[in-house]
Amino acid sequence: MSPVPRVAVLLTGSELLDGRVHDCNGATVASSLAARGARVTHVLTVPDDARQIVAALRFSLDQDLSLLVVSGGLGTTHDDLTTAAVAEAVGRDLAEDAQALAWIEERTRAICRSRRLAFAPAFAQMRRQALLPAGSRPLPPAGAAPGFALVVGDTTVVVLPGVPAELEPMWAALVDDLQQQGFFPSLRTRTVRIFGAGEIQVAPVVASSAHGLLDVGVTAAAGEVTVCLRHAGGEEAEAQANRLVAGLAEQLPVFSTDGRTVDELVADRLRALDATVAAAESCTGGLLGARLTALAGSSDYFVGGVVSYANEVKQSLLQVSAATIAAHGAVSEEVALDMARGVVAVTGATFGMATTGIAGPGGGTPDKPVGLVYVAVAGPDMRRAERHLFRGDRETVRVQSVTAALHLLLQAMGT
Amino acid sequence: MSPVPRVAVLLTGSELLDGRVHDCNGATVASSLAARGARVTHVLTVPDDARQIVAALRFSLDQDLSLLVVSGGLGTTHDDLTTAAVAEAVGRDLAEDAQALAWIEERTRAICRSRRLAFAPAFAQMRRQALLPAGSRPLPPAGAAPGFALVVGDTTVVVLPGVPAELEPMWAALVDDLQQQGFFPSLRTRTVRIFGAGEIQVAPVVASSAHGLLDVGVTAAAGEVTVCLRHAGGEEAEAQANRLVAGLAEQLPVFSTDGRTVDELVADRLRALDATVAAAESCTGGLLGARLTALAGSSDYFVGGVVSYANEVKQSLLQVSAATIAAHGAVSEEVALDMARGVVAVTGATFGMATTGIAGPGGGTPDKPVGLVYVAVAGPDMRRAERHLFRGDRETVRVQSVTAALHLLLQAMGT
Repeated sequence: MSPVPRVAVLLTGSELLDGRVHDCNGATVASSLAARGARVTHVLTVPDDARQIVAALRFSLDQDLSLLVVSGGLGTTHDDLTTAAVAEAVGRDLAEDAQALAWIEERTRAICRSRRLAFAPAFAQMRRQALLPAGSRPLPPAGAAPGFALVVGDTTVVVLPGVPAELEPMWAALVDDLQQQGFFPSLRTRTVRIFGAGEIQVAPVVASSAHGLLDVGVTAAAGEVTVCLRHAGGEEAEAQANRLVAGLAEQLPVFSTDGRTVDELVADRLRALDATVAAAESCTGGLLGARLTALAGSSDYFVGGVVSYANEVKQSLLQVSAATIAAHGAVSEEVALDMARGVVAVTGATFGMATTGIAGPGGGTPDKPVGLVYVAVAGPDMRRAERHLFRGDRETVRVQSVTAALHLLLQAMGT
Repeated sequence: MSPVPRVAVLLTGSELLDGRVHDCNGATVASSLAARGARVTHVLTVPDDARQIVAALRFSLDQDLSLLVVSGGLGTTHDDLTTAAVAEAVGRDLAEDAQALAWIEERTRAICRSRRLAFAPAFAQMRRQALLPAGSRPLPPAGAAPGFALVVGDTTVVVLPGVPAELEPMWAALVDDLQQQGFFPSLRTRTVRIFGAGEIQVAPVVASSAHGLLDVGVTAAAGEVTVCLRHAGGEEAEAQANRLVAGLAEQLPVFSTDGRTVDELVADRLRALDATVAAAESCTGGLLGARLTALAGSSDYFVGGVVSYANEVKQSLLQVSAATIAAHGAVSEEVALDMARGVVAVTGATFGMATTGIAGPGGGTPDKPVGLVYVAVAGPDMRRAERHLFRGDRETVRVQSVTAALHLLLQAMGT
């Protein structure tokens, strides 16, 4: 087994720091490295500023890395400064690389043909991309700009273009190479998902189970807690992982020990039962349907639903009685149950789900505060409702409502 | 005018580097600082590893910053290491802060009440969050963990929790404080929004208008192009901004010159007309309703709708005829128009919107490929449909469909 390699990512581009572009290269590169068992020491984003790029390179080269992946700033405009910054940071001269130049000439001819531009002036501008730090190995371009790799001490520095459509195929090819060279350690991952307990309840369970050979990560989001265990294999590490997973499953409301999300479990269970589902939504406004249809192939089990934001729509399309709304209010267990039954009646689905609540920021009362949400499920010979009081802003309350409704359905379907 | 402050963001959390969580705090903090005219020197993400956090803090404190914002690692589990790392990096001891402790006690009591846990053991675990580096000012928590601020040389270091629902309100309060203290340079911003033209058409319009005194950012997302102009004030800069905005409005399909989004414009127009709207959704599965209800107060104009994923639901709940579906297919202009009319009929809304299309990845044919989407609007004495062929994955196609439907409604309502 290889030792765990330390790796890092350096992204250059002012547009990544001022909100114009939401970076995805950092996530692409870091998560593919982490998934293969490398230890990502950092992801660092800096603007198109030579001083900042050099400082970021020096910091990165100081972290005992096996691999540093740099992206962005390889083009031909005034703000493409990365290659020169790498040369400066590692104290090497720039020299024109014959292989890189040949690739650039070929690409420039293709671009000039398709855009009907004169070759000579375009090539004069493009050829500066063949200037690489001395000792670099050029990497074949996916678009116009070649990348390059060079070895600095114990660190391999790989420099790629920032355009995701160019970076992604070049990066995929590099990862394959690294894999074949045995760069990555063998690694096992277990993911445990919990609904109905907070991080505060998870921490003591983790602490009480030996986990010295495991890398344990705990994350809370949208009402769920996820525990990720990773280890390098071996009998004792496997045993620690098994004991920790068993301990979590015993003491906490664990709903998944194989990594599947509640969305995937609901989809799998509906398919196994050959059942369908429909959604009746008030405070979530369509978010539950959107989430039920986010997975490809959801038409196998999702038939549709009703968004009954106004009480009149609850009555006309879901057959909720005016008397029930008058007696209990639209945000009530009774209305949630009637909505779930109503959407089964009008769509013919096996299961009906419902949400009704106060997402805020307005609309709360002392009796029915912002964050009060009822979710309900109706199915063959069953109906069930749950009351929740969620914290957070409008979006957070809505997302938690959807998650709670999915869990109620999953529980209602049994296993 | 204040000089331009140098600022940076440090994110801690292993989950941000291994693909478990897609960070949004970095974008939230960096873009709000950049929008106010600060210079963001870097965004640095490191795992829950004390050595890495200390190295990242030292690197950041070396960049002549006015402000360093740190997020994550303030909780109570074994991998919450940020506070201790800050203390180590700046050479200060940890001491229990009375104000922080009072806040934590209050929050712990609330959590224990709602989760029915014993207070004493929970508080014993939570109170370590009151240990702050000497000289820190505690910041009131939005969730369980207080933040803190401390001054190190010329740099103010602000440390906030990593959970976005906690960070966002705490960060919003801090930005307000900084604004009032005159931390940001004075800066004027104009935002122009375009729907129906690409970046390639926007670039020459920008190039043809003098903009030497403006900072111009162009971003494309979800079928819209946004042009942001920023300048430091002054008559000539104002004139450049006005001429560029006028040029864009003259030559391109600009729908907003005051920063309002299509969502806000639709909401404002519906309120002005005292009109209501309902949504009939197929491929978007509820996403259109979710977006129409994302703004607080949407019950003023949104009554609800029908998610008609299955053809049977299009017929039973939206009165789309089986003959129309058989003749033209569910993904057709005719069905989109019938869905829009149907949702008006069943809800009584003033306007009905509809989406039907093939979001992919499966389900495409040569005649009706993945990405083919019809959007429609029906209103008093009008109905209109549009055919779109969107590129991108399932989620991208669905989001673009919603945006296109909103623009069609906005146009249908006139101004």
